[in-house]
Amino acid sequence: MSNLIIWTLDWVPEGPRGFVRDLRLRWACEEAGLAYQVQTVPFADRESNHLTQQPFGQVPFLTDGELQLFESGAGLLYLARKSDRLMPDDPVSAAHTLQWVISALNSIEMVTVPWWFLSLSGNQDNGLGKWTEKRLQQLESVLEGRDWLVANRFTVADLLMADVLRIPEVRALSNRPASEAYVQRITERAAFRKAYADQLAHFEAADRCWS
Amino acid sequence: MSNLIIWTLDWVPEGPRGFVRDLRLRWACEEAGLAYQVQTVPFADRESNHLTQQPFGQVPFLTDGELQLFESGAGLLYLARKSDRLMPDDPVSAAHTLQWVISALNSIEMVTVPWWFLSLSGNQDNGLGKWTEKRLQQLESVLEGRDWLVANRFTVADLLMADVLRIPEVRALSNRPASEAYVQRITERAAFRKAYADQLAHFEAADRCWS
Repeated sequence: MSNLIIWTLDWVPEGPRGFVRDLRLRWACEEAGLAYQVQTVPFADRESNHLTQQPFGQVPFLTDGELQLFESGAGLLYLARKSDRLMPDDPVSAAHTLQWVISALNSIEMVTVPWWFLSLSGNQDNGLGKWTEKRLQQLESVLEGRDWLVANRFTVADLLMADVLRIPEVRALSNRPASEAYVQRITERAAFRKAYADQLAHFEAADRCWS
Repeated sequence: MSNLIIWTLDWVPEGPRGFVRDLRLRWACEEAGLAYQVQTVPFADRESNHLTQQPFGQVPFLTDGELQLFESGAGLLYLARKSDRLMPDDPVSAAHTLQWVISALNSIEMVTVPWWFLSLSGNQDNGLGKWTEKRLQQLESVLEGRDWLVANRFTVADLLMADVLRIPEVRALSNRPASEAYVQRITERAAFRKAYADQLAHFEAADRCWS
C-alpha cells in the first residue's frame, strides 16, 4: 500500500473544476502507475486552515510517509524521481526535463497566470497582454519543431507545460497551431483523462453531500 | 579545470546591472566553491541571436561540457546536486529545498515580477498590487518563525528567495521586518558580494571597450 497522499480541497465551485492543481499530481501518479490516495482540507476558511502544510493557503500538497511537500511543480519533480515514465534516467535528459518544468513555471506561467488574472475583469488587452503573446509565440516556435519537449518522448515537462497551456483563455489567445496540437495530443492521454474525470467526480460527490 | 560556463550578455545598460540573473548562477558557484567561466552573447539582437540556447532570448544559460541548460531556477537546482553547501544530502531536506526553490519561482516571483513590470509605468497600485502584498505577507509570516527556509541552514532556496525579494521595489513594498532582515543577512554573504561585484565589473569592463 502506498503512502502517497494528494491533498486537495473538499469542494470548489464549478468554475475551477478540472483545473485545480491536484490534477497535476493525480495525472503524474497515473502516468507512473504510482498508487495514491486523495484527502482533503475544507474549502471554508481555506486561506488559513492549512497554513502549516501550505503557507500560501493553496492546494495541492503531498504527503509521502513523514514527508510533507507543497508546490505542485515540486511535487511533480519529486514524483518524477520515482519513475522513468515521468523523467528519463540519463542525466542530460533529466536535466532537460528539469529545465522545461522550470520553464513552464517561470517563463510561461509567470506571464500567463497574472495575465489571465487581470483579464478576469474583462480586459484581455491588459498591461500583460503583449508579453503573454510574445512568450506563447516563442514557445510556439519551439513546438513547431518537435512533438515533445525532451528526449523525443513524453515526460513530466510535457505534463506540466500542457497543463499550463490548456487554460481556455490561454488556448484561445492568438493562433498557435503547434501549441494547440501539442495540448490536444497530451490531454488525450489516458492518464490525463482519468485524473480529470476523477477530479470532477471528487467535487461532484461533494455537491451531493452538501445538498 | 572546470567545464562550467555561465553565459550572460556582453553588456547591459546601467538599470539592470546587479540584477541580471547570471548573478544567481555566479553566486551558487561561489557558495559551492565550483570553478566556472563567464562567456557572453551580444546585447545587440539579444532577442534572436541565441534562441538555440535560450528559446525566450534571455540570459543566463549554463553549459557543462556537452550539457546546455537554460532557466536560472533549473541551473540552481542542477548546481545544487554538485554540492551539499547548496542542498543538504538527506532526502527530506533535499525535497524541501526543491519545494522552496519552486515556491520562489512560482508563488512569489510569479506575482512580484509581473507586478513590478506593470509598476514600471508608474502605478504600483496596479491590478496585481493586492495579490503581491498578500503573498509577500504570507511569506513574512514564514520568515518570522525562522532564519532559513530549510533545515535551519543556508541552502540554494535561500539564495533564490533572497534574490527574488531584493528587488528594490519589492523590498520597499509594505513593512515586512522579518523579510528585510532575511534579505540583508543573505546578501551580506561573501559569495553574494563577490558575485555581485563580479557582475558589475563585467559590465563596467564592457563600457570601457565600447567607449
